[in-house]
Amino acid sequence: MPKTHGGDIYNNEVKLDFSVNINPLGMPDTVKGAIAKAITHCDQYPDPTCAKLKQTLAQEFAVKRYDVSERDILLGNGASELFMAIVHAIRPRRAVIPAPSFSGYEYAMQAVDGEIAYCLLAEAEGFDPDFCQERLVAMLTAETDILFLANPNNPTGKLMSEVNVHHLLDHCREQGIFVVMDECFIDFCADAESALRWVKKYENLMVVQAFTKIYAIPGLRLGYLVCGNKSLREKIARNLPEWNVSVIAQEAGATAARARAYVTRTQKYVQRQRAFLEAALTDFGFRVCESSANFILFYTELPLYKMLLKKKILIRDCSNYEGLTQGYYRIAVKREEENRQLLKMIGECIENN
Amino acid sequence: MPKTHGGDIYNNEVKLDFSVNINPLGMPDTVKGAIAKAITHCDQYPDPTCAKLKQTLAQEFAVKRYDVSERDILLGNGASELFMAIVHAIRPRRAVIPAPSFSGYEYAMQAVDGEIAYCLLAEAEGFDPDFCQERLVAMLTAETDILFLANPNNPTGKLMSEVNVHHLLDHCREQGIFVVMDECFIDFCADAESALRWVKKYENLMVVQAFTKIYAIPGLRLGYLVCGNKSLREKIARNLPEWNVSVIAQEAGATAARARAYVTRTQKYVQRQRAFLEAALTDFGFRVCESSANFILFYTELPLYKMLLKKKILIRDCSNYEGLTQGYYRIAVKREEENRQLLKMIGECIENN
Repeated sequence: MPKTHGGDIYNNEVKLDFSVNINPLGMPDTVKGAIAKAITHCDQYPDPTCAKLKQTLAQEFAVKRYDVSERDILLGNGASELFMAIVHAIRPRRAVIPAPSFSGYEYAMQAVDGEIAYCLLAEAEGFDPDFCQERLVAMLTAETDILFLANPNNPTGKLMSEVNVHHLLDHCREQGIFVVMDECFIDFCADAESALRWVKKYENLMVVQAFTKIYAIPGLRLGYLVCGNKSLREKIARNLPEWNVSVIAQEAGATAARARAYVTRTQKYVQRQRAFLEAALTDFGFRVCESSANFILFYTELPLYKMLLKKKILIRDCSNYEGLTQGYYRIAVKREEENRQLLKMIGECIENN
Repeated sequence: MPKTHGGDIYNNEVKLDFSVNINPLGMPDTVKGAIAKAITHCDQYPDPTCAKLKQTLAQEFAVKRYDVSERDILLGNGASELFMAIVHAIRPRRAVIPAPSFSGYEYAMQAVDGEIAYCLLAEAEGFDPDFCQERLVAMLTAETDILFLANPNNPTGKLMSEVNVHHLLDHCREQGIFVVMDECFIDFCADAESALRWVKKYENLMVVQAFTKIYAIPGLRLGYLVCGNKSLREKIARNLPEWNVSVIAQEAGATAARARAYVTRTQKYVQRQRAFLEAALTDFGFRVCESSANFILFYTELPLYKMLLKKKILIRDCSNYEGLTQGYYRIAVKREEENRQLLKMIGECIENN
């Protein structure tokens, strides 16, 4: 059975959803406009090659000085489709995945009956991936086919240091291990360095990014994969369905990719609100994992998920994450007024406990 | 390399597209309304279980007296995603496919490096699938893992007789062969009997249908699979990405599934226009394959594709179909004024030849 995720507003009555990590500023107006315009074209098949969207992305990569061209890009119906296509193409027998991390890698590995070895991140080390580098390398032997890394990691919000990413890529290449670098939340991190600049250097590297979170369009489904290895990329492409990206997603994406100023504005907003939330959660006596992303992992012995759900606030109960236990929760960094509302409600939960 | 398809309006300047087989009456107004409403929910993740849409479909199946329940249904990001998930779940080594037929089955089989044996439909037999029943059965030995059938077939527009479908299902079950029954165009055929009523009886049967064509929403991507075999269905589900159906597609689908009157109106319209087109094409001296669907296959020695493209009319050049040669073309049955326009232009092509 698939694990439950955040965002289950379909089985709960929810007024404030802190369980999904979407841009608190919402959809850029330009993207809203693109969607409204695209609707009139839904009676046409989407471009199966996503030519216009690839072109726009490549132009943006050029601005950022990444050595990535149009042909290195594959578009997907959400990042989740790309993870699935990767495992269908490679059919890895054994994957190494840090824990806790996004359960989607596990979901994909199950589709091909692959085995998973988890490398546990320790709370004593602040869940810092750099601290577990040595343990991770020790697990990455020739028996491993693929390594899934999230940068920043979800649910911890931790970034890996560049030097360690680089070292892991080198080590994995030596051992013949594919590396999936999931950067679905990287645009929320002001100082993060994307592994995109290494796709031409490492033939074992696949970088996955999403439009879903940063442009607040999870309902549309749009992600992309960048890989400089032609034969690997073509193998993945052959495992993607034809016409996999809808007309609306292609149009929204082509507009969103140009919204650089919106991304910068988001980063600043999130940074301020995250600091505010982290301080308040710490003041409540919770153990808070310092985050670089737009969500915060923390620990409390209060049954906070149930308590807040009674107040129609949904947070992410992280007890079903591999490597976490009862008591871990994740909240999104939302708009100031929503964050204040959440803190007020948590305050009430503590008082009435 | 994937074969080219119809609908390539992205690389051609086209005023009238007869190459894709979409409902000539366009999108129902109720569906347009549902889409417009759904846009405001694109900042939420789609329901990964598609609960509401499954419920609506099951209710409609009940009206049609099919023995199909909610849990027998899987939703896909277009029928193409479901074909892909089927081959990923089953990993067939050998498929039997009638030819000519939809190239999507071949595309899916290539993803798993499967072998394909084509059962050639003969023009001398009017491409009638019932005529090749004996040849087909002879090919369906224990070495075959899967049979792909389109009913009605694309590009011929031919329906199989019920008795032959039934016989094939029996034979395939005996031989341990999975049967994919592609009914993506069946709603255009007034008298066709869907294999949906057999999904509970045959554990080797998967029926695939699409919203794309009959509700004119190919840009949205929405198809479904019905299978009464729980373990097979779960295996297919595990090979579908999470959140694979967008918010907009789910909302549009739930509304479309109730548009029964629209389907009946479409059938009548298509029937009249098809007869009109078939008669006119025959009068032009073309060899016309009598169709039960919303498209028509015909043969002429005129280089009609190029000639019409100069007039910005796109038709489907079928020379790249397995089992067809240069000279075969497929046109959609469109609105009366469009059909008249096409015929006028073909008339000009003949005159100026």
